[in-house]
Amino acid sequence: MQPEEKFQQLKNLLAEIADLNYTVALLGWDQQTYMPPGGAENRGHHLATLQQIVHTKFVAEEIGKLLEDLQPFVAQLDPDSFEARLVKVTRHDYDLESKLPLDFVADRAMVTTAAYAAWGKARAGNDFPSFQPHLEKIIDLAHRYAEFFAPYDHPYDPLLDIFEPGMKTKEIKEIFGNLRPQQVELIRKISSRPQVDDSFMHLTYDEQKQWDIGVEFVTEMGYDWQHGRQDKTLHPFTTSFGLGDVRITTRVHPNYMASALFGTLHETGHAMYQLGCDPSLDRTLLFDGASSGVHESQSRMWENLVGRSYPFWQHFYPRLQEVFPSQLGNISLEAFYKGINKVQPSFIRVEADEATYNLHIMLRMELEISLMEGSIAVRDLPEAWHTRFQEYLGITPPDNTKGVLQDVHWSSGLIGYFPSYALGNLIGAQLWECINRDIPDLSDQIRRGEFAPWLAWLRENVHRHGKKFEPQELILRVTGSKINPAAYMRYLEQKYSAIYGF
Amino acid sequence: MQPEEKFQQLKNLLAEIADLNYTVALLGWDQQTYMPPGGAENRGHHLATLQQIVHTKFVAEEIGKLLEDLQPFVAQLDPDSFEARLVKVTRHDYDLESKLPLDFVADRAMVTTAAYAAWGKARAGNDFPSFQPHLEKIIDLAHRYAEFFAPYDHPYDPLLDIFEPGMKTKEIKEIFGNLRPQQVELIRKISSRPQVDDSFMHLTYDEQKQWDIGVEFVTEMGYDWQHGRQDKTLHPFTTSFGLGDVRITTRVHPNYMASALFGTLHETGHAMYQLGCDPSLDRTLLFDGASSGVHESQSRMWENLVGRSYPFWQHFYPRLQEVFPSQLGNISLEAFYKGINKVQPSFIRVEADEATYNLHIMLRMELEISLMEGSIAVRDLPEAWHTRFQEYLGITPPDNTKGVLQDVHWSSGLIGYFPSYALGNLIGAQLWECINRDIPDLSDQIRRGEFAPWLAWLRENVHRHGKKFEPQELILRVTGSKINPAAYMRYLEQKYSAIYGF
Repeated sequence: MQPEEKFQQLKNLLAEIADLNYTVALLGWDQQTYMPPGGAENRGHHLATLQQIVHTKFVAEEIGKLLEDLQPFVAQLDPDSFEARLVKVTRHDYDLESKLPLDFVADRAMVTTAAYAAWGKARAGNDFPSFQPHLEKIIDLAHRYAEFFAPYDHPYDPLLDIFEPGMKTKEIKEIFGNLRPQQVELIRKISSRPQVDDSFMHLTYDEQKQWDIGVEFVTEMGYDWQHGRQDKTLHPFTTSFGLGDVRITTRVHPNYMASALFGTLHETGHAMYQLGCDPSLDRTLLFDGASSGVHESQSRMWENLVGRSYPFWQHFYPRLQEVFPSQLGNISLEAFYKGINKVQPSFIRVEADEATYNLHIMLRMELEISLMEGSIAVRDLPEAWHTRFQEYLGITPPDNTKGVLQDVHWSSGLIGYFPSYALGNLIGAQLWECINRDIPDLSDQIRRGEFAPWLAWLRENVHRHGKKFEPQELILRVTGSKINPAAYMRYLEQKYSAIYGF
Repeated sequence: MQPEEKFQQLKNLLAEIADLNYTVALLGWDQQTYMPPGGAENRGHHLATLQQIVHTKFVAEEIGKLLEDLQPFVAQLDPDSFEARLVKVTRHDYDLESKLPLDFVADRAMVTTAAYAAWGKARAGNDFPSFQPHLEKIIDLAHRYAEFFAPYDHPYDPLLDIFEPGMKTKEIKEIFGNLRPQQVELIRKISSRPQVDDSFMHLTYDEQKQWDIGVEFVTEMGYDWQHGRQDKTLHPFTTSFGLGDVRITTRVHPNYMASALFGTLHETGHAMYQLGCDPSLDRTLLFDGASSGVHESQSRMWENLVGRSYPFWQHFYPRLQEVFPSQLGNISLEAFYKGINKVQPSFIRVEADEATYNLHIMLRMELEISLMEGSIAVRDLPEAWHTRFQEYLGITPPDNTKGVLQDVHWSSGLIGYFPSYALGNLIGAQLWECINRDIPDLSDQIRRGEFAPWLAWLRENVHRHGKKFEPQELILRVTGSKINPAAYMRYLEQKYSAIYGF
């Protein structure tokens, strides 16, 4: 068989796997939006059956053989070509999946199912000791996982690589080691200044109007309802069923208007990334973001760099006031802008503001790395959490429910995911500087409600590539530097010095 | 391996296939409720990939071998046992699927895809000649299909068997040959009497209120929203994702209140059948109705035998009047009851009333049988349609759009399905007589809004068996007779003689 035929054969097999993965995504979307409670047990079966079929089909010898056979073919192609990149990324993911023995996959499923249930109870009861043995098993699984990918430079590397292909623990230690003291210092400066008032955000806002205004804003910004939709859920997410159908979800709080508004912007940022992928990538592994961090850079750009910017609200605020006259009629644009950008150290990550958020992440990441290095034991986590929290944010959680037990991630076996959240903020700021350099009047455009040039830039430089490039490679190509915190710190300093006057 | 182990192995394989089928159902449900237009192309891929996997897994040699090996095991069991029935039904469906060569399956997909597109245009343009070559190919496929199941008594038998397992053309010819003249005569009698007034049904009814009252009624009747939901769609259907999640869909017309109201009752009847299956049947091929016709008997019972009955509206009409005072405030219960039961020959099957509906079906069934016998050619269909329509219903369609082109079924390759609609009416009436015999005060119960005993009867006698028995066998066991039109004619005569006074 000619290599071109073999490549086509690989593509066909991957298309089938993509269809199955899109179908798994639909099972998950439905589960979190419309499924009645009675469907839960069967849905577990549906998901388990589909996921097992996907896994079996993906790690099939046939695919391994094709990837092997295609090495010489792609070696002589442009390394940036679709063909070369598809084989590279597929090879990476193939190794990721095929190195895991079935008994490990089964153990992981059992341990995480039990851990997730235990975590829910432990969090509700502020009972870390009851969760501790489960978390110990999870960390043990993480070690076992890492060993399948030995040799490595650092035992955290294989975990990080799942979410940030190609990135090393050494790199993120350096990035965040550099960032942390600067962010701590910034929070200290902000905390020393008079606080801004955001009480207007906690008034009662009609839920349907909150929903509608979010829809109105993202429509004006370019989200295309022919290729997506928005539904209600408890934990917002974005999901894709292929190039033509990328959906967002949102939750609405009657007494906290930021939740739906900025949540909708956030999820739309994720959706626009998927929708901007080159159509040729659809039904391949390249139809995805470069990494979780790069994906997060897009959502955080919509939510914060654009959505919490002054020009954005110069454009949209009159409309928001019109919809909520009794809540916002007497709040000036300046007061609104300051309110939505209020910085205040708090205990819960998902409620954290733009400036403190990364410190929540760094703390988790550092604990994860220490657990993998063996320099800390699971039983010591609560104390380590409290100590660091005081050091970074100047406050100490009153209990473990508001501390080490707050996140679902570890109980689900997700070790290595947290860095992506913080990397997203850094990458977003780096891209943002480049966009502002390439589109000098970007602020004026946004003030006028012209979002097309901004989106065109993102599409050209980031979105269309999908998962072709690893995150460091992509950011280096686009911005001229690897991922680093300089742009992010410049952004925070500039923004908050203006708001808090230092 | 012990036979018990082999049986368990078969069950495991069937459970996996059931999960895949439920997943295909979700892809279809989403396609018809929420999917944005941009998702259509990918959804086609999802469905094709999943269906191909289901097919391949089901016709696998492993299953054939297990079925073979289990023959002696089940032969010595109670023939009504779960084990014996599961093997029997699986064997039936296995033969149905495994006898089709892949090239036939591919041809059928191609022909029907093209025919469906051509049909849409032909119907819109009243252009039968442009559809004729497509329909000729469909009929040719039906002949090819039948040949895979030779020898047969009649070439229509294998087609009928898809929807009504075990039933023969000879039987339905006899059933409907007996029924047709009686129904024609009934319509003639009704037509000779003064017409009732149903103009109140065509006033404007608030769509949300129509939706809500339907929900209220079926909730009171026993549909459990913990195990289902209702969504809007263009062509209402019921779909099941397993025992705990059976969903209905409904459409609402602002100027025709019967559509949502009776449509909701109809679909809930289907849903209650699925929800009433014995839990042990879930994730096997037995978790389904005995046949399309028996399924239809349940939906038509909710819609007509109960939903268009006088006691039902004695109970519910005051509430309906309360919700729609301006439309129904001055309409008496008697006038309402007569209006919703108005009989008037018309051209479109899906708009036909309870008394004329079967004649629409018989006409189609007779033409299908003639096409399979070769006693009529596709090109002669329009004329044959018009002639029979005049004969059965006393009117002649003005064109083919309102005649032979109106239904989607043939263009989708569905030959043999129509009889199920009419059988559903017959079976429903037969069951209805038995229920009334076993629950002598059924009318009073319904008048008081007590639906539990009626549902308990259906669950005990019909629902719990799922697909364990073939339709004729089930009806014989429950009613003491095979499917026949006597009860149905008694029901129609009694109902319409009272309404029309003859």
